[in-house]
Amino acid sequence: MDNKCQFFREIPLEECFIDKEPYYVPVGNEVEVFMAAYKNRLPVILKGPTGCGKTRFMEYMAYRLKRPLITVACHEDLTATDLVGRFLIKGESIEWSDGPLTKAVKSGAICYLDEVVEARKDTIVVIHPLTDDRRIIPVDKLGVIMKAPDGFMLAVSYNPGYQSVVKDLKQSTRQRFISIDFDYPPADLEVQIVAHESGIGQEMAKYLVEIGARIRNFKHHGLEEGVSTRLLIYAGKLIREGIEPAKACQIAMVRPITDNPDLQVSLDEIISAIME
Amino acid sequence: MDNKCQFFREIPLEECFIDKEPYYVPVGNEVEVFMAAYKNRLPVILKGPTGCGKTRFMEYMAYRLKRPLITVACHEDLTATDLVGRFLIKGESIEWSDGPLTKAVKSGAICYLDEVVEARKDTIVVIHPLTDDRRIIPVDKLGVIMKAPDGFMLAVSYNPGYQSVVKDLKQSTRQRFISIDFDYPPADLEVQIVAHESGIGQEMAKYLVEIGARIRNFKHHGLEEGVSTRLLIYAGKLIREGIEPAKACQIAMVRPITDNPDLQVSLDEIISAIME
Amino acid sequence: MDNKCQFFREIPLEECFIDKEPYYVPVGNEVEVFMAAYKNRLPVILKGPTGCGKTRFMEYMAYRLKRPLITVACHEDLTATDLVGRFLIKGESIEWSDGPLTKAVKSGAICYLDEVVEARKDTIVVIHPLTDDRRIIPVDKLGVIMKAPDGFMLAVSYNPGYQSVVKDLKQSTRQRFISIDFDYPPADLEVQIVAHESGIGQEMAKYLVEIGARIRNFKHHGLEEGVSTRLLIYAGKLIREGIEPAKACQIAMVRPITDNPDLQVSLDEIISAIME
Amino acid sequence: MDNKCQFFREIPLEECFIDKEPYYVPVGNEVEVFMAAYKNRLPVILKGPTGCGKTRFMEYMAYRLKRPLITVACHEDLTATDLVGRFLIKGESIEWSDGPLTKAVKSGAICYLDEVVEARKDTIVVIHPLTDDRRIIPVDKLGVIMKAPDGFMLAVSYNPGYQSVVKDLKQSTRQRFISIDFDYPPADLEVQIVAHESGIGQEMAKYLVEIGARIRNFKHHGLEEGVSTRLLIYAGKLIREGIEPAKACQIAMVRPITDNPDLQVSLDEIISAIME
Amino acid sequence: MDNKCQFFREIPLEECFIDKEPYYVPVGNEVEVFMAAYKNRLPVILKGPTGCGKTRFMEYMAYRLKRPLITVACHEDLTATDLVGRFLIKGESIEWSDGPLTKAVKSGAICYLDEVVEARKDTIVVIHPLTDDRRIIPVDKLGVIMKAPDGFMLAVSYNPGYQSVVKDLKQSTRQRFISIDFDYPPADLEVQIVAHESGIGQEMAKYLVEIGARIRNFKHHGLEEGVSTRLLIYAGKLIREGIEPAKACQIAMVRPITDNPDLQVSLDEIISAIME
Amino acid sequence: MDNKCQFFREIPLEECFIDKEPYYVPVGNEVEVFMAAYKNRLPVILKGPTGCGKTRFMEYMAYRLKRPLITVACHEDLTATDLVGRFLIKGESIEWSDGPLTKAVKSGAICYLDEVVEARKDTIVVIHPLTDDRRIIPVDKLGVIMKAPDGFMLAVSYNPGYQSVVKDLKQSTRQRFISIDFDYPPADLEVQIVAHESGIGQEMAKYLVEIGARIRNFKHHGLEEGVSTRLLIYAGKLIREGIEPAKACQIAMVRPITDNPDLQVSLDEIISAIME
Repeated sequence: MDNKCQFFREIPLEECFIDKEPYYVPVGNEVEVFMAAYKNRLPVILKGPTGCGKTRFMEYMAYRLKRPLITVACHEDLTATDLVGRFLIKGESIEWSDGPLTKAVKSGAICYLDEVVEARKDTIVVIHPLTDDRRIIPVDKLGVIMKAPDGFMLAVSYNPGYQSVVKDLKQSTRQRFISIDFDYPPADLEVQIVAHESGIGQEMAKYLVEIGARIRNFKHHGLEEGVSTRLLIYAGKLIREGIEPAKACQIAMVRPITDNPDLQVSLDEIISAIME
Repeated sequence: MDNKCQFFREIPLEECFIDKEPYYVPVGNEVEVFMAAYKNRLPVILKGPTGCGKTRFMEYMAYRLKRPLITVACHEDLTATDLVGRFLIKGESIEWSDGPLTKAVKSGAICYLDEVVEARKDTIVVIHPLTDDRRIIPVDKLGVIMKAPDGFMLAVSYNPGYQSVVKDLKQSTRQRFISIDFDYPPADLEVQIVAHESGIGQEMAKYLVEIGARIRNFKHHGLEEGVSTRLLIYAGKLIREGIEPAKACQIAMVRPITDNPDLQVSLDEIISAIME
Repeated sequence: MDNKCQFFREIPLEECFIDKEPYYVPVGNEVEVFMAAYKNRLPVILKGPTGCGKTRFMEYMAYRLKRPLITVACHEDLTATDLVGRFLIKGESIEWSDGPLTKAVKSGAICYLDEVVEARKDTIVVIHPLTDDRRIIPVDKLGVIMKAPDGFMLAVSYNPGYQSVVKDLKQSTRQRFISIDFDYPPADLEVQIVAHESGIGQEMAKYLVEIGARIRNFKHHGLEEGVSTRLLIYAGKLIREGIEPAKACQIAMVRPITDNPDLQVSLDEIISAIME
Repeated sequence: MDNKCQFFREIPLEECFIDKEPYYVPVGNEVEVFMAAYKNRLPVILKGPTGCGKTRFMEYMAYRLKRPLITVACHEDLTATDLVGRFLIKGESIEWSDGPLTKAVKSGAICYLDEVVEARKDTIVVIHPLTDDRRIIPVDKLGVIMKAPDGFMLAVSYNPGYQSVVKDLKQSTRQRFISIDFDYPPADLEVQIVAHESGIGQEMAKYLVEIGARIRNFKHHGLEEGVSTRLLIYAGKLIREGIEPAKACQIAMVRPITDNPDLQVSLDEIISAIME
Repeated sequence: MDNKCQFFREIPLEECFIDKEPYYVPVGNEVEVFMAAYKNRLPVILKGPTGCGKTRFMEYMAYRLKRPLITVACHEDLTATDLVGRFLIKGESIEWSDGPLTKAVKSGAICYLDEVVEARKDTIVVIHPLTDDRRIIPVDKLGVIMKAPDGFMLAVSYNPGYQSVVKDLKQSTRQRFISIDFDYPPADLEVQIVAHESGIGQEMAKYLVEIGARIRNFKHHGLEEGVSTRLLIYAGKLIREGIEPAKACQIAMVRPITDNPDLQVSLDEIISAIME
Repeated sequence: MDNKCQFFREIPLEECFIDKEPYYVPVGNEVEVFMAAYKNRLPVILKGPTGCGKTRFMEYMAYRLKRPLITVACHEDLTATDLVGRFLIKGESIEWSDGPLTKAVKSGAICYLDEVVEARKDTIVVIHPLTDDRRIIPVDKLGVIMKAPDGFMLAVSYNPGYQSVVKDLKQSTRQRFISIDFDYPPADLEVQIVAHESGIGQEMAKYLVEIGARIRNFKHHGLEEGVSTRLLIYAGKLIREGIEPAKACQIAMVRPITDNPDLQVSLDEIISAIME
């Protein structure tokens, strides 16, 4: 076991390139659409549920386009300063430190804002001048406007299932993007993915995918969100370690997604029906 | 592809002049009204939906009047300090840095506050003394009052479709402006614009404009906002890249503007009816 | 056109004197009442709608009394510090800078707080000790109490039409003032003012004043606030520039005051009826 | 007229002594009760409407007891730091500056918190240890606890007519005080006061007091607060300056206390009935 | 009268010891329970109304256990920093200053958080690691964890009559304490206390206690909180100073606890019935 | 009694290792599941009521895995900065100080976030990149991204009984964890624990456990939360000190968990029925 911690004072840009082709099998024409958008520098929205492969798709496209990828997990307290940059104390002097968005602009990277609806609307507004003809970002604290080089592109994602009136993109933001829909992969593809990533056999993977599909049907019966492909993989990993399959499904696929006792009973019954 | 980042520590004023005549075809007498307002230094409100050409109009007027144009995208956390200016750390010393409004006042520019209703009311109040006889701006942090030179003018815009009780200009602000209405361009003009900016043919542009018109009719049936001319151009660009036209319309004109599944189905049917 | 910006590091007090007699025609005995109040140093409230001449009246009284006039536009985020003063970075040292209220106290000026109900109640409380026998202002940040010289006087204004439970002066504040009512000027006087300030003829001014009067009647039918004399003057200026009169009225007198389509139609009909 | 501004960097304690006997005529046994409370160092609440003489009473008691009087006008943003003290920048060094409460404790003064319910509950809690056996005040920023000398006493006031659930003293605060009720002075006494302070004759003062009494009856008919003795004095001063008596009453006694047009009409009728 | 102010830059720990046995007569077995809790270092909650003797009990137990007692009056804006400590400016250097909780931990004192439900839940959470086996307190700002010595103990108090959903201890906090109930002392004991502390005779004290008991019955008829023993003592002190007994009861026992005119009348009648 | 305070300026990592096997008896296969999760570095949620042994389980697993354990008690004001680290003033210089999460990442420890739902959602989001393939933590203030060494693992806990809409983990957070359910130990096991930890006999422990079980049944009759094993141990300790058993149960098992008088009566009756 290697306990040495990799501690870099500057994240070298090379690290942001994806060297190895990520494991990604396209479901529709999402790759072509993204390529066309990139060629025209149209900003892109990826819409879809938690854990259905949006992040993996971005890694795949960055690999294909040979551009560095800079990802920002958005949240309610993400400020424009967090995105753009701030002054930091380094030793005895104060130095400017680019935020991820500025870094992406400077290096002509693909900047990916994950769960963008979580960010406050005023934070999001800083991307406006990057998403029209101007392709600029004003860095107020430096008194500077930067013009994005040709390589730069902006993509954002969110889960339309969560949206509410408070958490929604403004139309003046939305109408700066084209939008690609994502969903859980089709069953046969998901079986492949679960088997590949967890190391269990196709047979067991099939059971897990079938349970997953049935759980997702409960989304219209009180379940907040369907079970993600990631959790199917977790279940597979526990099974590979010798945890009893039905128990592994409860632990990895039911308990994480709901605290509602009635729903837990219903979902456990699905597992029993298929596993036993 | 050019990845060199243009990084200026001071945005030179010359950059704020519009050198090339922007592509703008007037719809009514908006140009004459704006000229009359400018001659009398009356502040102007532009009202209209997202992406209907308000910003382009401002660029066109700045070009016509040969004045620099300084644009500010307003948002909820825009402070009076952001507009007026602040002290910045530059190397070892602290220097004053003008905000965009102060910069515009000093250089006799046209200052354009985009989506002004998004800004907090206390931010907006700093423009009051600039919009009456006094034409001054108090810069509290410097202990200075600046008088605007003759060239300075103030314009603001907002989308009346969004307004609510919380997000509205105060009457004491409103009654300092004259107001010009904007809307999507008439169909034949919009066809020209879409063809010109996306590079597709007139025929295809006509289809896109017709779809756009039908989608806009849905504004009275649950759609928050009509589709902007900008998104029609996006669709055109995707089509030019070889994306199948109906698909391109879904991606660029339907998915960005709504997450409502029922609305999506209705709007997709419009596309099918016209494209196929 | 003169683009030189007048940039003073200190606003010299002389600038706060009104040298030229402002154009003001009294409507009632407001001048006598104000003189009596000033002689007894009673604080004064001016109540009335937006743009009806309260600010002009203050300029006139300051001219008559030969006292400097210091005006503060109140807003929700105006702090006691903004009124009283703060420490500023000037070059390498930190220097105290008086706020407008302190400046007015020190120089025996008339201090005028415009739209005082917009300010937070805790901000307003700093004027309490200036409005009773003590006539003092505590400057906490300097650890100083200043006593106002004889020349100092305090006036505030607000629009009673806006008031709500949240935005109201506390009785313990109100009962420190006498109060003078203001309203739009009577028709014949308003005709004079509009003609004088916009440069149009008496005939046209009469039409504008008649339209203004009819629009103000709509205040009891959904209009938030009547149209101000200032907007009548704006309309006059546009007409003088050759904009068609009915159009000028729509642009300067209807669109700025309401976004409600039904109201716009009704008010446009008033304009047609009179102008055509 | 004397325009020299009295500007002290330190308010000398002597200024806080009341040298001249304030004009105060007791209504009941409030003086005896206060003396008994002071002898036992019991904290005192004064309850009563705006402008009925609570502050004057405190000045009178401070004069009688020959103790300095330090008054704090409470408001929503008064912090414990404001009361206790802070570090101030003086020239090049930072010096501690006592807040009014600490100053009062150090000098054995009477500290009077006016409108105490306006202050936030967490601010008020700093007075708790001063109001029991301990008679101490912790000065966190100095890391010091001060013990009040024998001369120190605490009094607070508020207007019970304003109170609401949000703005109320906690029982754990209240039960540290005895409480004395105040009200407007009886008619004959108020006539004396109004005549004495405004310089008008007894006859006119009687009219003003009668109008005041009738207006106060409206408190049960929609008036938020009765008219204060202070406003009666204001009316008297305007009359002495030659303003027509009925007009003076409207300006000084009706308009300041209400914006409600119906109430204004009713109150104006009272004035007409008595003055004419 | 001694006006010299005792001003210490450091509160010496010795001051926190209770040298003289406080006047406390146990009502039940509260002393034994507290001794057993202390021996096992179980944290203790004291529950009971305002002014019923909880603080006095803590002083008594600290005296009995010969431990220093450090009391913190909790309020809504008490921060974890206030409890734990902060850096202070002392002359030219910055020094760490322990908060009361840290001070208590370091010196093995009894730390008493009075009215603990007033504090925000996130403040309270800092005591969690002090109340289980670990008995530690993390001092984030120093990057230090302190382990409490054996002598340290934690007690908190609150008034269950006030509690609401917002102001309540979390179960994960509550279940770290044992809890002792307190109430007003039984009548004969309260007579002793009132006589002893106010210096009036047994007879008069009996009257006061009887009035107190009757007032407390009104708690179920609109009175927010019963009258505390402390206020009975206040009334006694006023009577000893010669204030007429019925008047003294109104001033010290009725007016402080309610502003409701109807309740005041009812409670005054109780006083008349007993005193006259 | 040892009053020496252990005061370390740096918490040495060795202290975070659990040297002695904690007293923990497994109820189901929770140990195996946790081992399988650790082997695959799957993040783990522990769900269960207050005081049922979750923290003890984590200590036991850290002991078994021979990894340091770093625990963070979450609360509403825990910031990302608190978790990740900040700059501290140490003597004359400013030094970086790792927060507990960064410390855990650097040292390959198990990081345990207790009551994770209490933390704000934006705080929780910093753990996202640690819980997927990347296993990284961005340290914004240093401009650094750290990669977790192999030993690092993340576990969180919460009480599902408390959860509400506001206080809930987002699905995008939840679906990064497997989840293990915890509950109060079965009766025979709880008897052992109570006897072992409080030092009372098996017989008495049995009574306490029976009372505990009956109290927990009241959770469906208005009781917010069942009584924890910890409080049963407290009761045992008081009994061992000679406090009468029924009284000890009231003090340690009823009063701490509810202020509701009716519930207190019901629960006291349970105690009487069993103890007497």
